[in-house]
Amino acid sequence: MILETIEKENDIKNVAPEDWNLLAEEIRSFLIKKISVTGGHLGSNLGAVELTMALHLSLNLPQDKIVWDVGHQSYTHKLLTGRRSGFESLRKYGGMSGFPKRKESECDCFDTGHSSTSISAGLGLVKARDLRNENHTVISVIGDGSLTGGMAYEALNNASRLKKNFIIVLNDNNMSISENVGGVSKYLNNIRTADKYLDMKEGIYNSLMESNLEPIVTSIRRAKSSVKQLVIPGMFFEDMGITYLGPVDGHNINAMMKVLREAKRCKSAVLVHVITQKGKGFAPAEKHPARFHGAEPFDVETGLPLTPKTKSSYTDVFSTVMCKLGDRYQDVVAITAAMPDGTGLKRFRNMYPDRFFDVGIAEEHAVTFAAGLAAGGMHPVVAVYSSFLQRAYDQILHDVCIQNLPVTFAIDRAGLVGSDGETHQGIFDLSYLSSIPNMHIMAPKNKWELSDMLKFAVAFQGPVALRYPRGEAFDGLREYREPIRFGKAEWIYRENDIALVAVGSMVKTALTVREALLRKGFHCSIINARFVKPIDTEILDEAVENHDLIVTMEENVASGGFGEKVREYFDRHHFGTRLLAVHVPDEYVEHGNVDILRRELGIDAETIGQKIMEQYKEMSHKDSRKGTKI
Amino acid sequence: MILETIEKENDIKNVAPEDWNLLAEEIRSFLIKKISVTGGHLGSNLGAVELTMALHLSLNLPQDKIVWDVGHQSYTHKLLTGRRSGFESLRKYGGMSGFPKRKESECDCFDTGHSSTSISAGLGLVKARDLRNENHTVISVIGDGSLTGGMAYEALNNASRLKKNFIIVLNDNNMSISENVGGVSKYLNNIRTADKYLDMKEGIYNSLMESNLEPIVTSIRRAKSSVKQLVIPGMFFEDMGITYLGPVDGHNINAMMKVLREAKRCKSAVLVHVITQKGKGFAPAEKHPARFHGAEPFDVETGLPLTPKTKSSYTDVFSTVMCKLGDRYQDVVAITAAMPDGTGLKRFRNMYPDRFFDVGIAEEHAVTFAAGLAAGGMHPVVAVYSSFLQRAYDQILHDVCIQNLPVTFAIDRAGLVGSDGETHQGIFDLSYLSSIPNMHIMAPKNKWELSDMLKFAVAFQGPVALRYPRGEAFDGLREYREPIRFGKAEWIYRENDIALVAVGSMVKTALTVREALLRKGFHCSIINARFVKPIDTEILDEAVENHDLIVTMEENVASGGFGEKVREYFDRHHFGTRLLAVHVPDEYVEHGNVDILRRELGIDAETIGQKIMEQYKEMSHKDSRKGTKI
Repeated sequence: MILETIEKENDIKNVAPEDWNLLAEEIRSFLIKKISVTGGHLGSNLGAVELTMALHLSLNLPQDKIVWDVGHQSYTHKLLTGRRSGFESLRKYGGMSGFPKRKESECDCFDTGHSSTSISAGLGLVKARDLRNENHTVISVIGDGSLTGGMAYEALNNASRLKKNFIIVLNDNNMSISENVGGVSKYLNNIRTADKYLDMKEGIYNSLMESNLEPIVTSIRRAKSSVKQLVIPGMFFEDMGITYLGPVDGHNINAMMKVLREAKRCKSAVLVHVITQKGKGFAPAEKHPARFHGAEPFDVETGLPLTPKTKSSYTDVFSTVMCKLGDRYQDVVAITAAMPDGTGLKRFRNMYPDRFFDVGIAEEHAVTFAAGLAAGGMHPVVAVYSSFLQRAYDQILHDVCIQNLPVTFAIDRAGLVGSDGETHQGIFDLSYLSSIPNMHIMAPKNKWELSDMLKFAVAFQGPVALRYPRGEAFDGLREYREPIRFGKAEWIYRENDIALVAVGSMVKTALTVREALLRKGFHCSIINARFVKPIDTEILDEAVENHDLIVTMEENVASGGFGEKVREYFDRHHFGTRLLAVHVPDEYVEHGNVDILRRELGIDAETIGQKIMEQYKEMSHKDSRKGTKI
Repeated sequence: MILETIEKENDIKNVAPEDWNLLAEEIRSFLIKKISVTGGHLGSNLGAVELTMALHLSLNLPQDKIVWDVGHQSYTHKLLTGRRSGFESLRKYGGMSGFPKRKESECDCFDTGHSSTSISAGLGLVKARDLRNENHTVISVIGDGSLTGGMAYEALNNASRLKKNFIIVLNDNNMSISENVGGVSKYLNNIRTADKYLDMKEGIYNSLMESNLEPIVTSIRRAKSSVKQLVIPGMFFEDMGITYLGPVDGHNINAMMKVLREAKRCKSAVLVHVITQKGKGFAPAEKHPARFHGAEPFDVETGLPLTPKTKSSYTDVFSTVMCKLGDRYQDVVAITAAMPDGTGLKRFRNMYPDRFFDVGIAEEHAVTFAAGLAAGGMHPVVAVYSSFLQRAYDQILHDVCIQNLPVTFAIDRAGLVGSDGETHQGIFDLSYLSSIPNMHIMAPKNKWELSDMLKFAVAFQGPVALRYPRGEAFDGLREYREPIRFGKAEWIYRENDIALVAVGSMVKTALTVREALLRKGFHCSIINARFVKPIDTEILDEAVENHDLIVTMEENVASGGFGEKVREYFDRHHFGTRLLAVHVPDEYVEHGNVDILRRELGIDAETIGQKIMEQYKEMSHKDSRKGTKI
């Protein structure tokens, strides 16, 4: 195995050129084998094997810097920088991250996870280099999907001013997470498929040079830049002031090394357009790129998931209900930012293509576009992951909520998401959304409630955020299905002693806590909060009456979360009420199995039960000292 | 006066074409006269007079829709839609807004304020129109400055797919708030200044058509689109799939009406490139565009401000200290998103041009670019207004804070800003920043403390947000200048009874509250919080010892703010402590004089004093009932 000779960065340079393709094959086999066991991002990594090898052959790490946009495609980079053994524990708790991490290797120069940041970060590294009179190469590797994000454009616009070298590799696989959309993608596609056009440009250039048009050519060259811009691909980038090189075959290492050599000579920002195939070398991934974007463990022969999904996820429920709502309400439209599969909107798209919009990886536009649709009389449902909606904080506040427009935010992957780790945990949405005036926030306890809440939201005349977690939908408590009423919570159990006020997925946890405490002789009520904003003050008034302790439970950080809202209310209206707030600590949460994470963070049923007991003891102790009974 | 004959929308159509220029003159005189008294945005409005007239002459309002990007340029639109009398109370409390507002007129179809939203919103209105089988025209008017924002690009990318009409007017005045930056601006400038080039394109086109190259031309036409794209301006937009018309003189009404007629016929998104001059028709505004962007009341003859500034603002202090820090630390660099004047970075730019970056109206890129610079060993200071930083929430959370990078955020216009109103109030930053792990937040009580804090921040090895208000810097309490220590608050007065824990600008208010309460026999301590995150728990421990009531004071909304952090701490460590949290209510705040707003919101010294007295009485009452003494 050649791969085994590569123990650290730059070892690849000892591999003989005639063995490069063999090494690429070995890397692919390795990745398929490992990811089939651990799960992980397969397609993007298979597509970038030769590209990564060409970069490592052309650069000197860690002095030279590679910024991987999103970072899903960094597995080969990890393999070539001494992290082969890390693949045993890929994306597991305490194991190797699926993304570049500075704390993991000196060869990772910038952490990524969300889309379209690499050119901004790379430009920052370039400016730092030049101000410190250093001399290394900085390369940002960005996919065509990430190029639909506005940040990438903002950064290109700034990079155009550079008088020093900065290489942007456009890893163009004609396929971000789902199909690409919009003008830029069409433009790139034109370049990709323009063989005839490419031949022709030679023709016209030669003809121009040979004909009596030469004086005109010369004057164009002077007036704008050169005739090259007028007739070859990449004008779009060149118009912005970015030198364009390509397109080049992203599975041909020699070709890429040649163009990278050329790129390094530019005293400016230069975009190298590399054409790759997502999933390259593994037939199932070539055929079903979306399925192998972020894959669960699978059978290497067939590509089929090892543990076939049986129970439905919240995403599935959302998907089904959206189709029904599309039929019932003609004003319901659906928007996704490049995630028709992940958000479950694919079926809505197939049924109502005119009312479905995939805007690309462009959450900011998605939200303001929704505001425009709402101002025009429609009711948009923006389906988006919790951590990605962070991108549109200002648009929610400024474009949707000031005008109090009826936009529904279907926030998937809210709470802990597991193996994607700190960039993807959906643990901030309750905080960043609830300080926005006019925003309303709901969370369902089970699959039926998600359905009821979604129906409520699209009939509601104002902004509603509906947050639900990744993975299997809870199908317990089916018999508890009171109609959704604005701002109203729901009693699940009415007892005394302790009231557990749980948000969304925490209702399920509350059931376990309740049983455990019952075995210790304590009686727990359970309130399903339903609304995080506004909070149901009436039910809290009731709860305070006959409970010694109120426990709020949420899968969100403390700061700005549900617990703080309840505490604020108690402080003003029920001063002296004992409150225990259970929440994710105010810190970033690493990757790993969600059950392990919950235990580590102290929000699993067992730890919550212990916390309640401790609080109870402390209360009894203090109160007995004071001589009053609680 | 022709202007007086215009009482409502469409009345302008009764004005004879030969009187259009006269009307434009009257509008300019009116705007200069009114804004010289009230203050307001002058330059952008003077530049857009004829453009607005041409739009109103070409459209049928309110059926047709105009989305004004940012909205600073909407004064002529307001004049032509029956709001002439509103200019008496422009931007005053209870008066007319300086921005388009749906609640103000049916002719305002979408509220704006922040940059680069108009194409997204317009596209939403277009899709709503088409889905509802309506037939009106939708026009988004966007400046060249706003085109540097990534959202605009995301929207253009999506608009390119349209098969129905959508008109985007690019109001290009070669000057957003300060000079434009970046590739797109250079590109537009090339178009503007390309007389020679334009002549030449005719030449090359004719030559091509006459020469034996015709077969090639034809094949290009087929292969890509047409030779037109290769040799005329606007290729950048056409490459994205947006039809380009122009450039056209933005002060020639007939020319604009002609091109708008042509644009209306397109079955696609079409960009009309209009060249205007900011400040047109008022010599001081033509000469000093930045000064007349948002102008204070001024003398019409000279253009000079009526009330010359005497006292220095926090912005001035920041400006001065940054220049000193630039000299002291070679790793300090400064970043602005198109606001070198507004943020006070102009002097730093002049002194250290290599270490100054104006990225355009691109807050997202600004922050991730800063993260890149920090990862590369520099210490960036991002100077930005509080409400605009909302745009970069995800970049702060995902690119700066996960990696715990040393980036200083100098957040100007934090708290109430006054006449710009609800889109610009800086009342959310404590909330959205404090739920972000690794973020640290400070606020100075006076001008010397801003200086001390800035020095502390740039020497700190992690993210720091430093928030300070618009306007005059407080120059009291000069003698209180304890060194800044991490996470430590400062005693200003140590008494008993009541402890006022004030954040930043609220320290000044606390002094007045203290005096008023002293006259009633109550002794107030004052603690200058200094740090909003982390809170100083030691000083709170001390305060709890000998005060009956703790009062937190902040110019931020309640939800997620400083008061909630203190309450959470008390609840865990000093259960039973009486807390009164003074803050902005959880709602949007209209435009108007800041002192009036504070009174209306109940955060002026007088109302705070009353609230404290009420709380005190209530406490005494309750506690006497319980038979215990507080």
